Amino acid sequence: MFSCFSKSRHPRQVLVINIGDELLDGLNTNGHLTWLGEHLARRGLAISRSVVLRDNLQEIAQELRTSWGLYDVIVTTGGIGPTTDDHAREAAATALGLSLEHVPKAEAALRERFAKLGRTVSEQDLRQCYVPTGAEAVDNPRGTAPGIFLAKDERILIMLPGPKLELQPMFENEIVPRLRSCGCACQGEAYVQVRTYGIGAVPLEKIIRPLLKPGMVLTFGTHTGVVDARISSGGNGATAEELCEVARKVRDTLGPDFVCTGHACLASLVVEQLRCLEKTVAIAESCTGGLLANAFTDIPGASKVFAGSVVSYTNDAKVNILGVPECLLAQHGAVSAECAIAMATAAAEKFGSEYALSVTGYAGPGGGTEADPVGTIYFGYASPTGVWSQRVVLIGDRGQVKLRAVNTALDWMRRNLHKYRVEDLIHGS
Amino acid sequence: MFSCFSKSRHPRQVLVINIGDELLDGLNTNGHLTWLGEHLARRGLAISRSVVLRDNLQEIAQELRTSWGLYDVIVTTGGIGPTTDDHAREAAATALGLSLEHVPKAEAALRERFAKLGRTVSEQDLRQCYVPTGAEAVDNPRGTAPGIFLAKDERILIMLPGPKLELQPMFENEIVPRLRSCGCACQGEAYVQVRTYGIGAVPLEKIIRPLLKPGMVLTFGTHTGVVDARISSGGNGATAEELCEVARKVRDTLGPDFVCTGHACLASLVVEQLRCLEKTVAIAESCTGGLLANAFTDIPGASKVFAGSVVSYTNDAKVNILGVPECLLAQHGAVSAECAIAMATAAAEKFGSEYALSVTGYAGPGGGTEADPVGTIYFGYASPTGVWSQRVVLIGDRGQVKLRAVNTALDWMRRNLHKYRVEDLIHGS
Repeated sequence: MFSCFSKSRHPRQVLVINIGDELLDGLNTNGHLTWLGEHLARRGLAISRSVVLRDNLQEIAQELRTSWGLYDVIVTTGGIGPTTDDHAREAAATALGLSLEHVPKAEAALRERFAKLGRTVSEQDLRQCYVPTGAEAVDNPRGTAPGIFLAKDERILIMLPGPKLELQPMFENEIVPRLRSCGCACQGEAYVQVRTYGIGAVPLEKIIRPLLKPGMVLTFGTHTGVVDARISSGGNGATAEELCEVARKVRDTLGPDFVCTGHACLASLVVEQLRCLEKTVAIAESCTGGLLANAFTDIPGASKVFAGSVVSYTNDAKVNILGVPECLLAQHGAVSAECAIAMATAAAEKFGSEYALSVTGYAGPGGGTEADPVGTIYFGYASPTGVWSQRVVLIGDRGQVKLRAVNTALDWMRRNLHKYRVEDLIHGS
Repeated sequence: MFSCFSKSRHPRQVLVINIGDELLDGLNTNGHLTWLGEHLARRGLAISRSVVLRDNLQEIAQELRTSWGLYDVIVTTGGIGPTTDDHAREAAATALGLSLEHVPKAEAALRERFAKLGRTVSEQDLRQCYVPTGAEAVDNPRGTAPGIFLAKDERILIMLPGPKLELQPMFENEIVPRLRSCGCACQGEAYVQVRTYGIGAVPLEKIIRPLLKPGMVLTFGTHTGVVDARISSGGNGATAEELCEVARKVRDTLGPDFVCTGHACLASLVVEQLRCLEKTVAIAESCTGGLLANAFTDIPGASKVFAGSVVSYTNDAKVNILGVPECLLAQHGAVSAECAIAMATAAAEKFGSEYALSVTGYAGPGGGTEADPVGTIYFGYASPTGVWSQRVVLIGDRGQVKLRAVNTALDWMRRNLHKYRVEDLIHGS
């Protein structure tokens, strides 16, 4: 592989151009930017700036013309498919003063794929087999449009297909190795992320800031209760080991508010803890309405530890399916510590699980009382050693209250299982 | 109110600048762009281009300096709070050659808010009470940072706070009326959106394209089975009535593949249908793991029609909680039409509801058989007139299969309830 980059140049300037009318019209969210933001940063290529453009040949060409020379790496997404509104390929050639060259290998791959699917190849489909002179056509086993990788004048242009299921494996399997080969991406991980729960970004910063070495960069992300602190070398050459050392100190200072390093979600950590214990969990949820069960079942392999859930949205369901006593509901109401305890106990019993979580509360916008306003949630937690409840008041709209309630429940269980916690590993090192 | 815009100038050029390191580092998704994309387009202000920048004074000032004069409307999000890394306010003043002026009204509002919360006002907090000369400080009843509205040289600069719960009501309640007053936003709706299910974007385009009047613009968005076609006037002056006329013709051609006009989700339509019928629905779900129940419970007021759900993730749960016969599972397996039928019937019976939906299948990545590979889902639907099943094979990763399964189930129920469908209303007209 070629090596076009001097290793000393840090930090790289990276531009991401997302192409698609649907992103500007609010029809789709720009998930590619989020994904690339994380996966480029992990390789030491933090995005400097990003632009979203319409599927317009002139605008894309203009952007590439202006930006080429200002950035070390330019990544585009979308606009390289076969349809008449895919213009990125021509725009790149125009902007860089290159012609489009036919790649026989790409055509062979496309014809083979179409033959397998029993489809005939049209003239329009064949547009995808052309790349700007000097560029590589990057294999796309999941779709028809090959990617484009062009290294030229110490600059790199990467053009990725729009569908997520094509873009993500192409970036990981094809693009990252090429970036590493030309000395543009680091070999290991360029940052360490500390995931926390129960501490705000401001006090967290007060803990981390004094631990940083000169040049290290600290950024924060918050996700309905989860606060992530990302510590990166900032291009001053801090090693992965030095970053991990900071993370370890943060972990030791935080105690149980420390969740993990890396990107594991709360549900996957609880699933992992339960797998180690060889125990199962069941759920009885009211106001979260299935979202807590969904958090568990989003984790591949959850079936080993997740027994199931009853979404007991009505009092009748609490009584008839779970067996919560009617008199308890009449005396304390469905939104109460007593009901949360009864729900958790019933869930463990009905599903035959060792652990259970329950949630009951007011997600809003309606409901609530003077004592328990909208956002008030009671949680129940049953374990082989007993059953507990807690009350929390959460802010936000209905959707946010549901999400925060799910995270609160998962975090509570994580803390309770904490002593069995698997060794925390710094990802990738 | 002032009127700074000539009405004839169409279409407006609109730039959105989202500010925040977390957006470029993949720590948060740029939901503001999606939301503004829809809400600006509804007022005839489709976004021409969008940029994401870091919280860097020079870069923000540079962007504004370059863009001022090229766009009719510039909207920024984030960077106007009280912390030391909020630079957008100073950047705007610098870029436009204006000084920052103190707004006594804004300081009074801030002091009142802080007094209510029992917090003391710091020097740093008071930075939020300054706006570029000639700009208005826009009320922010949900937070501390006022927005900024500046009309100057036939251009408009709008600066919105970063938190979603402050940004969205400020835009709707404060910004839209100002945009209308100065002749920049249209009074009614600038597009009509036709939501469909069961027809791809390509055949849908073949139906809609011949119905468009010259100048009308057609864009598509797809969301795991839902295909949205948005028809906008494109600045050539097509009236809302003409757009609705196209939508009505599309509806009549599509038949049951037509879902609605506007933005209502499948679950809210089913909830609405059930409310009209005064009937309830229950769910028994396996591979969707709570996501189908969650789709219902995301709708405010769903408790009137949603009885509850059993997430029967294990065979034991199907037998013990739902009462699916063990011999049925032994003979046909949990992923079968027979099991789906039994689950739906049991859900209706256990929850005492008139309707029930059930889902059982292989979401992946594990599981599946030769006859029923990963992605195979069996659905059950019970109604007062009978119980049915259907088998569908869905593509995508685990998360996408779950989402598509939920949409397939909801769409199936919507079609079955179709004859009771409430009158379709064109939103906002």
